[in-house]
Amino acid sequence: MSVTAAQGFRAAGVTAGLKASGTPDVAVVVNDGPRRAAAAVFTANRVAAAPVLWSRQAVSDGRADAVVLNSGGANAATGTPGFQDAHATAEHAAEALGVSSGDVLVCSTGLIGERLDRERLFAGVAAAAGALSADGGEDAAVAIKTTDTVAKTAQARGEGFIVGGMAKGAGMLAPGMATMLCVITTDADVPAAVLDAALKDAVRTTFNRVDSDGCMSTNDTVILLASGAAGVAPDPEAFAATLHEVCADLSRQLVADAEGAAHDVAVRVHGAQTEDAAEAVARAVTRSNLFKAAIFGQDPNWGRVIAAVGTVPEEVAAFDPYALDVSFNGVQVCRASGVGEDRALVDLSAREVLVEVDLHAGDAEATVWTNDLTHDYVHENSAYST
Amino acid sequence: MSVTAAQGFRAAGVTAGLKASGTPDVAVVVNDGPRRAAAAVFTANRVAAAPVLWSRQAVSDGRADAVVLNSGGANAATGTPGFQDAHATAEHAAEALGVSSGDVLVCSTGLIGERLDRERLFAGVAAAAGALSADGGEDAAVAIKTTDTVAKTAQARGEGFIVGGMAKGAGMLAPGMATMLCVITTDADVPAAVLDAALKDAVRTTFNRVDSDGCMSTNDTVILLASGAAGVAPDPEAFAATLHEVCADLSRQLVADAEGAAHDVAVRVHGAQTEDAAEAVARAVTRSNLFKAAIFGQDPNWGRVIAAVGTVPEEVAAFDPYALDVSFNGVQVCRASGVGEDRALVDLSAREVLVEVDLHAGDAEATVWTNDLTHDYVHENSAYST
Repeated sequence: MSVTAAQGFRAAGVTAGLKASGTPDVAVVVNDGPRRAAAAVFTANRVAAAPVLWSRQAVSDGRADAVVLNSGGANAATGTPGFQDAHATAEHAAEALGVSSGDVLVCSTGLIGERLDRERLFAGVAAAAGALSADGGEDAAVAIKTTDTVAKTAQARGEGFIVGGMAKGAGMLAPGMATMLCVITTDADVPAAVLDAALKDAVRTTFNRVDSDGCMSTNDTVILLASGAAGVAPDPEAFAATLHEVCADLSRQLVADAEGAAHDVAVRVHGAQTEDAAEAVARAVTRSNLFKAAIFGQDPNWGRVIAAVGTVPEEVAAFDPYALDVSFNGVQVCRASGVGEDRALVDLSAREVLVEVDLHAGDAEATVWTNDLTHDYVHENSAYST
Repeated sequence: MSVTAAQGFRAAGVTAGLKASGTPDVAVVVNDGPRRAAAAVFTANRVAAAPVLWSRQAVSDGRADAVVLNSGGANAATGTPGFQDAHATAEHAAEALGVSSGDVLVCSTGLIGERLDRERLFAGVAAAAGALSADGGEDAAVAIKTTDTVAKTAQARGEGFIVGGMAKGAGMLAPGMATMLCVITTDADVPAAVLDAALKDAVRTTFNRVDSDGCMSTNDTVILLASGAAGVAPDPEAFAATLHEVCADLSRQLVADAEGAAHDVAVRVHGAQTEDAAEAVARAVTRSNLFKAAIFGQDPNWGRVIAAVGTVPEEVAAFDPYALDVSFNGVQVCRASGVGEDRALVDLSAREVLVEVDLHAGDAEATVWTNDLTHDYVHENSAYST
C-alpha cells in the first residue's frame, strides 16, 4: 500500500517536533527512477500557501525527484519569509538526497498564519532522508496526518504496473480540492504529459467531487510521480483507469474521516442534460447546511433537497422544478416535487447514505460526496485554534 | 409599529389551529385605501411554493387590497392541490372582505411537503377578517412567527407619511431572500411602479445581504402596500430612503433572531473595484462554515477569512491575494495577508461582531450579515421536522 507499493520509491515519516502532540510530522518520498516524471494539481484558492507557490513552479518542467511534506503548520499567509522557508526546505532535502532543489516539491498542512520552526523542520528532513526505505510508505502516510483519525493509503494494480498513494485531509474539503495533501506513485513508464492529463481528469471526478464543508483550503496538492521501474509503458487509457481507482479510493477515505461527521452522504443526480448540470445540482444539495443537519438527525427531509435544487439557475441546469423525484436510500419520498412514499420507510441509521435526485431532463448524471453537519463538526471547528 | 402604523390599514392575527403549539397562526392585513397600490419581491428559488405562484400573479397588476398569511405550513411541494388551496384561501378572504380574490395576496410559512388543513385555515381567515382593527398590527406580527423567538416590527417616518412593517424569519436566510415573510405598509400616495422600483432596490441592499445559513427558501415574500391615506405624494427618493430604513431595521432583526445563533456578524468588505465585487467577497466569507464555527468559538481566525476570500474568482473580484487586511472588531489581526496585530487583543464575547476585509483594489464596499455556526443551529435543524 501507500507510496512505496510501486517499485522505484522509498519513503519515510519521522517526528520533528512541529506538532505539539509529539506525533510524526515530516515525510519524504523519493523517486529512484529510472524515470522521474511528475504532474501535480494544486488548490484553486488565490491565497495559495508558500509551498504551493514553490511546488507549482518546481513541477512545471514535468520532473520531480522527491517530495517533502510536513504537518504541524500550513506555511500559508506567511508572506515572503514563508516562501523562503519552503525554498530552503527544498534545498535542505536536495542536499541530503543529492538531487537538484528545483526537483523537490514541498507540501505543508496545519494552521494558517504561523511560520514553521525552521530548525526542527530541517532536522526532520535530514532524519527522514536518512530513514528512507522501500517499506516507508505507511510511516509517511502517518506523518502527514492532522485531524485525520487514520492514515489513508490505497493501491491498484494495472497490467504489469502498480499505482499507490497516500492522502491526508479531514476538514475543509471542497471543490478546487479537499484540504488535502496527496502523493501518488507508479512504477509504470509514463511521460509527464500523460501523467498530467490523467491526473487532471481523475481529480475532476474524485477529489473535486468531495465537498465536506464547502470550504477550500490554501494548501491542497495532489502529486503524481512515475518511476518507470516496472519497465512497462501502459496504454494511456489503461493507466488513467488505474489512477482513477486510487484517487476514488483515497477521496472516499477522506469523506469517511471528515471532521466530526456521523454520515457519509452520496448525492447522485440523474436525468440531467449534461454532466456539468448534474454536478451543479448535486453540489447545491451538498452545500445546504439545512440538508446536512437533517441527515445528522436521520431525517429524510426531501423538502430541503428540492429547496436546494431550486437554487440552481436555469442557465446552469435546465429542468422542470415541479417534476423532481428524490430518494433516500432507495425510498422515493418525493415524486414530481410532491409527497411520495412514506418517509417512515427510510432508515438513515447507517453511516453511508445515498440521496438520489432525478431531474427528468436528460441522461447525464454525477455524484458529489459530502458529510452531515454535526455537533462534533461545530465543536472541532470552533475550538481548533484555541 | 407594524403594518398598522400607517393610516388606512387594519390587521388581525388569530389562532386557527394550524400549529401544534396552539399559538396564533393566521394573519390578515387590509388596505382601506383610498389608493391600493402594491409591489412585491419573491424568492428566486425555482421550486417556488404555491402561495408564491398565486401572489406573483395577483400582484402583477400593481394592486392588492389584502394579504392573508399563515404559519404552521409552507404549502410548498404540494402540487396542483396546494395551488388550489392558495387560490381558495384568496377567495375565502375576498368574500369575507368584500374585495376581488385577484386582489388578495397569500403567504405561507412552515414545513414543506404537507397540505394545509383547509377547514382550519378558512375558519381562521374568517375569524381574522372579523377581528380586523387599526391596532391589529402587533397581533398580525405574532401570528406569522415560526421558530422566531420574537415578533419583528418596524416603522419610520417620512415628511408627512409613515412606513411600517412586520417580518418573520429565523432560519434559511439567504440571498434571493431570507426565509421570510414581510409585509410593509405606507400611507404615502405612491404609484405601483414607484413602489416596485423602491422595493427592489431596498431588498437588494437589506434582506438580500442577510445570509444566515446559505439556504434559500421556497416561500420568501416581501410585500409593500400603499394606501395614500396620508394625502401626501412624496418625492420617490425620499420615499425610497424611508422604505430602506424599515427594510434595514427588519433585516437586522432577522439576523438577531436567527435559529441557534450566538453572534450576529457583519462582514464588511472595503477597497473593492465595484460594489458587486465587494458583495461577492463578503458572501464568500459569510458562507464559510469554518469561519462561522470559529466565531462561535470566539476565535478571530483570520486564516479562514482569507482562505474564503481566496475562493472568489478573479473575474468576479480583482485584487492582489497577498495584500489583504483583515480586522475583527477593529483589531487588524491580518496585514498584507500575513500576521498583523496580536489576536489576543480581539474580544468576541459580545453578540455583534464586525469583520472587515480591505482588498486594496478600489473604493467600493458592501456589508453582508450572517450568524455563527453553533451547536444550537445543528440541534434545531436536525430535529425540526421530527
